[in-house]
Amino acid sequence: MALRAAFRSRGGLSGLLSQWSSCSSNVRTCVSPVLLPQQRNHSTSPKIRVEFDQSTGVAVLHMQSPPVNSLSLEFLTELCISVEKLEMDKSCRGLIITSGQPKVFSAGLDIMEMYGKSPEHCGAFWRAVQEMWLKLYSSNMVTIAAINGSSPAGGCLMAMTCDHRIMADNPRYSIGLNETQLGIVAPFWFMDTMTNTVGQRTTEMALQLGLLYNPAEALKIGLVDQLVPEDQVLTAATQTISKWLAIPDHARQITKSMMRKQTIDKLRSNRESDIQYFVNFITKDSIQKSLGGYMEMLKKRRA
Amino acid sequence: MALRAAFRSRGGLSGLLSQWSSCSSNVRTCVSPVLLPQQRNHSTSPKIRVEFDQSTGVAVLHMQSPPVNSLSLEFLTELCISVEKLEMDKSCRGLIITSGQPKVFSAGLDIMEMYGKSPEHCGAFWRAVQEMWLKLYSSNMVTIAAINGSSPAGGCLMAMTCDHRIMADNPRYSIGLNETQLGIVAPFWFMDTMTNTVGQRTTEMALQLGLLYNPAEALKIGLVDQLVPEDQVLTAATQTISKWLAIPDHARQITKSMMRKQTIDKLRSNRESDIQYFVNFITKDSIQKSLGGYMEMLKKRRA
Amino acid sequence: MALRAAFRSRGGLSGLLSQWSSCSSNVRTCVSPVLLPQQRNHSTSPKIRVEFDQSTGVAVLHMQSPPVNSLSLEFLTELCISVEKLEMDKSCRGLIITSGQPKVFSAGLDIMEMYGKSPEHCGAFWRAVQEMWLKLYSSNMVTIAAINGSSPAGGCLMAMTCDHRIMADNPRYSIGLNETQLGIVAPFWFMDTMTNTVGQRTTEMALQLGLLYNPAEALKIGLVDQLVPEDQVLTAATQTISKWLAIPDHARQITKSMMRKQTIDKLRSNRESDIQYFVNFITKDSIQKSLGGYMEMLKKRRA
Repeated sequence: MALRAAFRSRGGLSGLLSQWSSCSSNVRTCVSPVLLPQQRNHSTSPKIRVEFDQSTGVAVLHMQSPPVNSLSLEFLTELCISVEKLEMDKSCRGLIITSGQPKVFSAGLDIMEMYGKSPEHCGAFWRAVQEMWLKLYSSNMVTIAAINGSSPAGGCLMAMTCDHRIMADNPRYSIGLNETQLGIVAPFWFMDTMTNTVGQRTTEMALQLGLLYNPAEALKIGLVDQLVPEDQVLTAATQTISKWLAIPDHARQITKSMMRKQTIDKLRSNRESDIQYFVNFITKDSIQKSLGGYMEMLKKRRA
Repeated sequence: MALRAAFRSRGGLSGLLSQWSSCSSNVRTCVSPVLLPQQRNHSTSPKIRVEFDQSTGVAVLHMQSPPVNSLSLEFLTELCISVEKLEMDKSCRGLIITSGQPKVFSAGLDIMEMYGKSPEHCGAFWRAVQEMWLKLYSSNMVTIAAINGSSPAGGCLMAMTCDHRIMADNPRYSIGLNETQLGIVAPFWFMDTMTNTVGQRTTEMALQLGLLYNPAEALKIGLVDQLVPEDQVLTAATQTISKWLAIPDHARQITKSMMRKQTIDKLRSNRESDIQYFVNFITKDSIQKSLGGYMEMLKKRRA
Repeated sequence: MALRAAFRSRGGLSGLLSQWSSCSSNVRTCVSPVLLPQQRNHSTSPKIRVEFDQSTGVAVLHMQSPPVNSLSLEFLTELCISVEKLEMDKSCRGLIITSGQPKVFSAGLDIMEMYGKSPEHCGAFWRAVQEMWLKLYSSNMVTIAAINGSSPAGGCLMAMTCDHRIMADNPRYSIGLNETQLGIVAPFWFMDTMTNTVGQRTTEMALQLGLLYNPAEALKIGLVDQLVPEDQVLTAATQTISKWLAIPDHARQITKSMMRKQTIDKLRSNRESDIQYFVNFITKDSIQKSLGGYMEMLKKRRA
């Protein structure tokens, strides 16, 4: 509850982190895995496992929230804290994000956080989604998405925040912003991020139709940058990040920041109205009904 | 009459339509074709034939203004009224625009409306061109251009307003904004529409050179989305639109509107100055001479 | 010195040209090469040789500043004067820019103008870089880059200002904005120019990594428009420019100006702050050290 309350406050994660450090020992068990030499552990929770290799300056963040890394309020909060900690660690220059769950990178926003919940809860949830995007899209670290499974909706958004995307070449996996298929709408900063990645026309079509692309299609339109066999995703990410780290940090960071500034500023200066818009939209009866129908359909599919 | 009044209320076609409504009853016969079961007829004039299939919610608008569907003031007015009627009909969810004339989709703006005409006439004409673009580019319906012939200049603009473009795979057909070849200039919203479709660089080159692309080239640069044999254009459009209609209307419409808002607002807030600019430009002696030369050339080519 | 002083003044080249014409006879020997029939000579200096063919209206500007056409303050000043003279000559409608030096189009900004120099000097230098870009990117002439050698950094920028880019198909040549590799940052108008040419995503990756592309790669991403054998670059440029000159000048110029206006206005209204930013950045100890290291590396490579 403390975490959620912090999200509601104006200061985003700065306030959150201080609260977190003062109470975390009470609410969580700190995982202490056996560390390899030269590795420190930044893990804050069993749902996020971070391996940091001091010799390369690269951290690998494994998402391991069963079954499909849904982006719940709690998971997003932990994710933001992990990223913030790495960001503040001067020795960490690169971040690889990957999944510890089979067949899925992340299934996207957790519908349970938007279905039958109070406006306050929906608002706190949306603030956490914004925070995740802001943290990752504006990161000073080199960020690589090692997409070792399907990555719809919010999972696709997370991948698009990274500097480079490597996907497992498995035709059963898919990636895309498929919100309209659920009867909901990707907000303007999802749109802007996708437009920055694949251009206006492809985005217009992809978002209107809620398209999910298989890896070959995603590569063709530039939604991912590289395909590799499934068991080589992490290796490829490690090789690629070393090329990015060969560039002087300062020059690379300013360049990245200049290229993304306009898009980031747009959300920063419209953050509260974006939350209000989301809450008004998602709590509508028609949208709630639509979400209910979608979950019913998912249940039947599983059964 | 109610429809016409509605046009007047919004500002848009006001002056233009009032002229039209005061004389149209004298000059036109309303066509009453035999309707197939489940089809209603929205036709307002022999120059536009609309077939509406209530079972699918899809209307097909056939342009049949001989010889080449030139966008005259009269034709544009009828086109806007037809589209507006469909837009207001809740049961109509999709619109396919195609040509009833052989070998041409639309030859674009009717030069006769700009040559040797009064500034007032040119202004009224330009307002109708704007209105056509605004109506189609901001339509809540799924719009598909079934391009069954050549589509230069204004014809290309009309096609680009649609959500999806299917073109007949006949190498003798061409499509593009070729205004500079006539010594005139595509205005900023033509440019913006093309930039949204094929990107900045391709647009810069296409517009400076007034390029017309054959179907294969148009597909390559993304000016059209799909090529099919000439006799299958309408069938393909019908198949494609059913995929678009599988998406919940509300989510699709908001998405489309968000993606196009900035471009549409730009014309909306500069409409009068854009008309003034066009009128000043087109009534210049040098431009009139250029148009005269172009028409002379066309005449000789036909002879 | 008079030339450099002029760059420091607010009025850019307008003041400069008048000063230049009043003193040029004192400071320079006018080259008088044997002219072919129908050719006039616009050369202002041995570092720039301009051939103008009155029968076609096309000027060819040969950069011949040994060894690698580095863009020094002096060279940029001469380049701007040459371009300005051609711009003001009504009979000159097209400009081909090429290199008279072997294996290189232009090696980009002259590091000597930024290393160990006073803030005043760095500011004057940067104003000249801006002026070169403004002159070329807003030129009313058709401009073609005949890229007959490598073209990194400022050389790539110069090529990107042109309407069309033809490159020698020699895999040992490369082109790109590789500033980050030197620890420096391409300013916003370099970014904007590249984004206008190859799109947001490719630019983001190219600039962060400081990528240099070989001709085949450059063609693929759209950084150049055409590859030809090395000995045919100038011939191809002459053929291509004739197609561009077939379009009525007035319509083509307005179109070009409309497409580039926003990007040009952005630098025009931020010119002084951009200079200030550059001077502050480049005179930092860390950046000076970085440049020193780079030059040391170049020296060793040559030895």
